[in-house]
Amino acid sequence: MAKTEKLVLGVDLGGTNIKIGIVSQEGKILTKNDVKTEAHLGPKTVIKNIEKGINEILKNKKIKLSGIGIGAPGIVSTKKGIVQNPPNLPGWDEIPLGAILKKKFGVKVNVENDANAAAIGELIFGAGKKYSSFVMVTLGTGVGGGIIYNRKLYRGEIGGAGEIGHISINPNGPRCNCGSTGCIEAYAGNHYLKEFVKKDLKNHPSSKIWELVNNDLEKVSPRMIQMAAELGDVYAKEIILDLGVNLGIAFSSLSNVLDISTFIIGGGVAGFGKPLFTSIKTTMISRVLTPLKNRINIVPAKLKNEAGILGASSLVFYNT
Amino acid sequence: MAKTEKLVLGVDLGGTNIKIGIVSQEGKILTKNDVKTEAHLGPKTVIKNIEKGINEILKNKKIKLSGIGIGAPGIVSTKKGIVQNPPNLPGWDEIPLGAILKKKFGVKVNVENDANAAAIGELIFGAGKKYSSFVMVTLGTGVGGGIIYNRKLYRGEIGGAGEIGHISINPNGPRCNCGSTGCIEAYAGNHYLKEFVKKDLKNHPSSKIWELVNNDLEKVSPRMIQMAAELGDVYAKEIILDLGVNLGIAFSSLSNVLDISTFIIGGGVAGFGKPLFTSIKTTMISRVLTPLKNRINIVPAKLKNEAGILGASSLVFYNT
Repeated sequence: MAKTEKLVLGVDLGGTNIKIGIVSQEGKILTKNDVKTEAHLGPKTVIKNIEKGINEILKNKKIKLSGIGIGAPGIVSTKKGIVQNPPNLPGWDEIPLGAILKKKFGVKVNVENDANAAAIGELIFGAGKKYSSFVMVTLGTGVGGGIIYNRKLYRGEIGGAGEIGHISINPNGPRCNCGSTGCIEAYAGNHYLKEFVKKDLKNHPSSKIWELVNNDLEKVSPRMIQMAAELGDVYAKEIILDLGVNLGIAFSSLSNVLDISTFIIGGGVAGFGKPLFTSIKTTMISRVLTPLKNRINIVPAKLKNEAGILGASSLVFYNT
Repeated sequence: MAKTEKLVLGVDLGGTNIKIGIVSQEGKILTKNDVKTEAHLGPKTVIKNIEKGINEILKNKKIKLSGIGIGAPGIVSTKKGIVQNPPNLPGWDEIPLGAILKKKFGVKVNVENDANAAAIGELIFGAGKKYSSFVMVTLGTGVGGGIIYNRKLYRGEIGGAGEIGHISINPNGPRCNCGSTGCIEAYAGNHYLKEFVKKDLKNHPSSKIWELVNNDLEKVSPRMIQMAAELGDVYAKEIILDLGVNLGIAFSSLSNVLDISTFIIGGGVAGFGKPLFTSIKTTMISRVLTPLKNRINIVPAKLKNEAGILGASSLVFYNT
């Protein structure tokens, strides 16, 4: 690596694992480390584990860090790097994670909500490089989002913006974990999708999914649905099509309100690929207001598996 | 009036009338004029009518204008004051209304979409003075909106943002004029609401609305529904309650995405008042994400009947 190149640490703080990487200015991960979060032991242990993971990755390396970026669950007050009530991290009320790590490692530390960090990751390193404005959508266990407008993250009143998983597309729809009904997450979230297919599959005895999961409904997964679709299974194709329609309905409302036409889609469920993307786009074109129709643009995310570390590390470059 | 006070012209360009007012820095309308738009005669005539209306109101008055603000339908490119394809103004493809009037009257001219102008009006002169961020909702023939974030109008990619009337709350809901289905406008727009009640009233033969409209369904209006509700009519109360629920469903999605908790509600249908506002708020609190629940704030607009002129005039002060 060139001596002038800036290096940063990206820390992806998850409920189970803390993933850490040394990342270059071009968005290359030079080396990685992975430690257990041990969330159940409370914030002190989690912070110790972050510090341990960072110390391990820096050991015996003569590099000058430009900063540390952290993607954390929950609402983050970025000025002081305070993480508030993150789901999956019990005991965290308001922890000034940024200040604690800044003191420990002597470099600037940028903390941001993980979904927002993913959006900034695409903006700085990924598919968002060439767009001024876009909505980043992460289709995983939940449906996460981040809004980039004029190359800036839109954060909202307290940094909670971008919760596009909780756009309701039907008040009579399935109950969502958030307490509301018909949220797009309750259709498209990994877990909800699996549960739906597990129940619905009984009405489709000839679906190839049965074979692929050896008649064991517990093995139903987005990957299995995708494999069945690729084998030409009509029911599996329908699931992907319907998923695209539901996402398209939610995104159309969003596009009408934000006047943003580009959606970058990442996360595991995005692996359905072109059939899903086409279904989203077709649905949106049929539903958005006229001035948006010919601008709608559905793009796959670029960062894939490393999105967590890269998104976190991009925060340092975004805030430079 | 004090000699140092800034005076501006506010021009509310509608499909039927052009309303013009001389407005003070404090948001007082000192004098008003009203001319026919004659939209069917095309843009040249409409522009002549605007100029005529302005000349009439300025005649024999020795005032120094600080600028002209115009609220226009359609998408507005604010840099050059270009009005694009406004609905209800046939023949307007792209008219540089701002530049034309600037040349004619020798003062700066700020043009903005009328729903956005209403939002800026509340920001500068009205209920929005004390909020950094809010969503302005106008419940009229349609459901219009404008998003104020950190005391700035959020405009989107081409200035089309804020179309909150086209948040769909149910894909199987009523067809909307925009071509989509279940848009909140197709529930709450004046015309849709009237049509719904006209049909539904037959199932409620004992409703007091029948008496108020002399059994003439054509006379059904939001005002009649409100009067019936005030007389204790259960059905009329239910309509207002349901309207609040539907609006609350749409606003909840919006609040989750934008992390904005204050909604300022104006327009004729907002006349339903407290029962409507309470229904919106209760619905939202039950549906938004936890960090928003105790912040939800539903506020009546302050500008009322003069919102058009005041919103337009506020553009000059906003851009100063």
